[in-house]
Amino acid sequence: MTHFLHEFFYPRTVAVIGATDKPTKPGRAIMENLAGFTGEVFPVNPKHTELFGRRCYPSITDIPGTVDLAVIALPVIAVEAAFAEIVMKKIQRLIMITSGFAEAGEEGKRLQERLRQAAIKYGIRIIGPNSLGVFNTKNGFTSFFVSPERIMKPQPGNLSIISQSGAIAVIMMEAMARNGIGIAKAINYGNRVDVDEADALDYLTEDDQTSAVVMYIESVGDGRKFLQTAKKFASRKPLIVWKAGKQEMGASAVASHTATLAGRYALYEAAIRQSGAVEAYSFEHALDAAKVVSLLHHTCVGNRLLIVTNGGGMAVAAADAAAREGFVMPPVPEGVREVLRRSFPAFFVLNNPIDITGSGSDDDYYRALTEALPHYDAAVVIVLTGTTTVTEKSAEIIARACKELRKPVATCMLQGMRYAEDVEKSVQKLGIPAFPSPERAVRALAVLRRSGCTLK
Amino acid sequence: MTHFLHEFFYPRTVAVIGATDKPTKPGRAIMENLAGFTGEVFPVNPKHTELFGRRCYPSITDIPGTVDLAVIALPVIAVEAAFAEIVMKKIQRLIMITSGFAEAGEEGKRLQERLRQAAIKYGIRIIGPNSLGVFNTKNGFTSFFVSPERIMKPQPGNLSIISQSGAIAVIMMEAMARNGIGIAKAINYGNRVDVDEADALDYLTEDDQTSAVVMYIESVGDGRKFLQTAKKFASRKPLIVWKAGKQEMGASAVASHTATLAGRYALYEAAIRQSGAVEAYSFEHALDAAKVVSLLHHTCVGNRLLIVTNGGGMAVAAADAAAREGFVMPPVPEGVREVLRRSFPAFFVLNNPIDITGSGSDDDYYRALTEALPHYDAAVVIVLTGTTTVTEKSAEIIARACKELRKPVATCMLQGMRYAEDVEKSVQKLGIPAFPSPERAVRALAVLRRSGCTLK
Repeated sequence: MTHFLHEFFYPRTVAVIGATDKPTKPGRAIMENLAGFTGEVFPVNPKHTELFGRRCYPSITDIPGTVDLAVIALPVIAVEAAFAEIVMKKIQRLIMITSGFAEAGEEGKRLQERLRQAAIKYGIRIIGPNSLGVFNTKNGFTSFFVSPERIMKPQPGNLSIISQSGAIAVIMMEAMARNGIGIAKAINYGNRVDVDEADALDYLTEDDQTSAVVMYIESVGDGRKFLQTAKKFASRKPLIVWKAGKQEMGASAVASHTATLAGRYALYEAAIRQSGAVEAYSFEHALDAAKVVSLLHHTCVGNRLLIVTNGGGMAVAAADAAAREGFVMPPVPEGVREVLRRSFPAFFVLNNPIDITGSGSDDDYYRALTEALPHYDAAVVIVLTGTTTVTEKSAEIIARACKELRKPVATCMLQGMRYAEDVEKSVQKLGIPAFPSPERAVRALAVLRRSGCTLK
Repeated sequence: MTHFLHEFFYPRTVAVIGATDKPTKPGRAIMENLAGFTGEVFPVNPKHTELFGRRCYPSITDIPGTVDLAVIALPVIAVEAAFAEIVMKKIQRLIMITSGFAEAGEEGKRLQERLRQAAIKYGIRIIGPNSLGVFNTKNGFTSFFVSPERIMKPQPGNLSIISQSGAIAVIMMEAMARNGIGIAKAINYGNRVDVDEADALDYLTEDDQTSAVVMYIESVGDGRKFLQTAKKFASRKPLIVWKAGKQEMGASAVASHTATLAGRYALYEAAIRQSGAVEAYSFEHALDAAKVVSLLHHTCVGNRLLIVTNGGGMAVAAADAAAREGFVMPPVPEGVREVLRRSFPAFFVLNNPIDITGSGSDDDYYRALTEALPHYDAAVVIVLTGTTTVTEKSAEIIARACKELRKPVATCMLQGMRYAEDVEKSVQKLGIPAFPSPERAVRALAVLRRSGCTLK
């Protein structure tokens, strides 16, 4: 049986109620963003007969044929009338962009409750209100009202995003796009009058396009349902959960943001751990975690970490982080050391970290990795590109070693500005994540290790 | 009396022993980097009569007149002979770039010890060996052998860097350059046969160009001397100390990096705290801390934090970080709320965080800050530039409010890619630090608060 959320992501016919050409209005951005959608779009607005090259309808009931999904981008006062038409038109799926409901006070709360009961009565499923709705790179369908000039769109990929905050969903998508990491689907459910984070997670568990999920939550609708769904998801695919509103101060910020109770953080912490998901502790931690699980497909089966570097200081920082993250760093085995000693100058340091120093070349990285990495579970490779013995080719060479050895490798390219950036971009294009500090590279591998623990 | 380190940073005449035009050799990069130096440079190399447009001398003793400082960039085997000539020439200051001493084994250790004793005998002060030496933006003098094509040079500024790792000194300089933050001086003392981190700190205490210092240390030469000097420095100017090699694994990496003992971290931790310095816990923490103390000159006198945002989720993340960092977030006073209520739409959230939502404009930031910030000690301002109601002008407006109110403000610009970057650059040009995540903005203000505590 098809999951009830499927038609939200793959509608064949969509009505955009409140479509407009007025700048800064959500109804305009939605229309613009649907330019690449493969299905049929019916703008609804009595003031227009045509919008963005599509025929515009005065009312929902004027649309010919079946409408799989309606997107409401009207002011809050116009919503109930539109809802009545949706019922008449027998539309079963509704994304409500409109804000001014429970998050806006008592009157809004009552309106939201009336809507909820009507939806149940007529069997209409709702995402929202006060939401961005959904984003699907597969068919170009999206109800995200983001400015196409301001927001960089991600390419299709295998990571999906579930976010209680619309802004954070967009920021994460952008950050992934910038890192060349593709997105499968994204959903922001706002006030979750109906669809919640657990529904979304449940749907994505069976979604072939999605191989990992990163979630931002301030609260959950139903704790038991969330735990159950998270468990099921995390038993198959990596799940990253960033729970904000941890402390009392954060929790009180949540109350004014999504009009929900942040709840006791300790309970969330326990639930996330119990489910087999990996908790992210900050914005950048969530981004790094999402990056590592979406790029690396070799699981990190143990905690033996190798560090290869051409600069000692950054390796010390990495080793500090490794200890914090529960890795061990056994020295390079004697046999490997002997082999490397034969081809390396005497001043290369063959402990763990392996330090090929400022004189080390691209090929020295390859040699160090191919000889030593088989004896470890994962590696952090630090490349300071300020030294002229390292070139852009190091990216390809490191990626090759990682692929041949089928071990997860995280990199950190520093120094040498544009050189570091070029190598970083190249290495990520080849599927090896790069991080802006050695500590973050280590921390990302720890995420992989923790999420790997749940894999069968 | 002039500090003995003064002539290292302000030599009038410098001999570069081992100057060369061979690519990838330190002696070449040093000559290239001295192109902008205002003093006189004497390359020394018997194979050349001219190098980089300067007359080249066959030996040190052939140089006419007094030489304030010699930079040795020779292979280790040639060092003792050169040292003998330095003695004959009565040069009193020596920067030793050459590696292959204590860090390279027993023979190197003995050589280093002979050198140390000879230096004492002849009253020669040494920076190094195995070091980059010094960097001074004031007069363009530097012995850093970094490739001028690969490494971006910082502008003159008020931040100085002391680093036990040469690579990290360079990476920090670059990171500051990229953020538009100027550098006064930098020093990397390598094996510290003579000059150590405490000498450098002592010198910079009286240096008018330096208004803050960031240090990277793996160990200190003399604990008592370090504590004393750090105390003196931190009583006048902000001091950031990043101690690496904290855990056993990191400490063992230190042993192979700088051939020193990392020591018990708890002792360092206590000493740093006792001195009034602020400890940085990672590479990015050190960078953020350096940025905030070098840009913001209004001290953070208390722990009352205001958050102003146009996106709720990121403010929740900031509030979580604020709690962790020891800030409190009292709600906006009733009187302020009433004033703001008159000019703001009803759906702006006037607690703390103040959330002007996706509809908030540049001017709304100004209004919120000017009314509320006087009641707080510092503010974090989050700007999601993906919304079209915010423009590039927000940078100027936020900077103006911060300056008028004389309160420290850290910003975080996200979403809207190029827009976020433009606003970020502009705001930093105006002296307000921007950070890539709300948590890091909060953490940076906490550094300012902690370092401010020591200010008289």
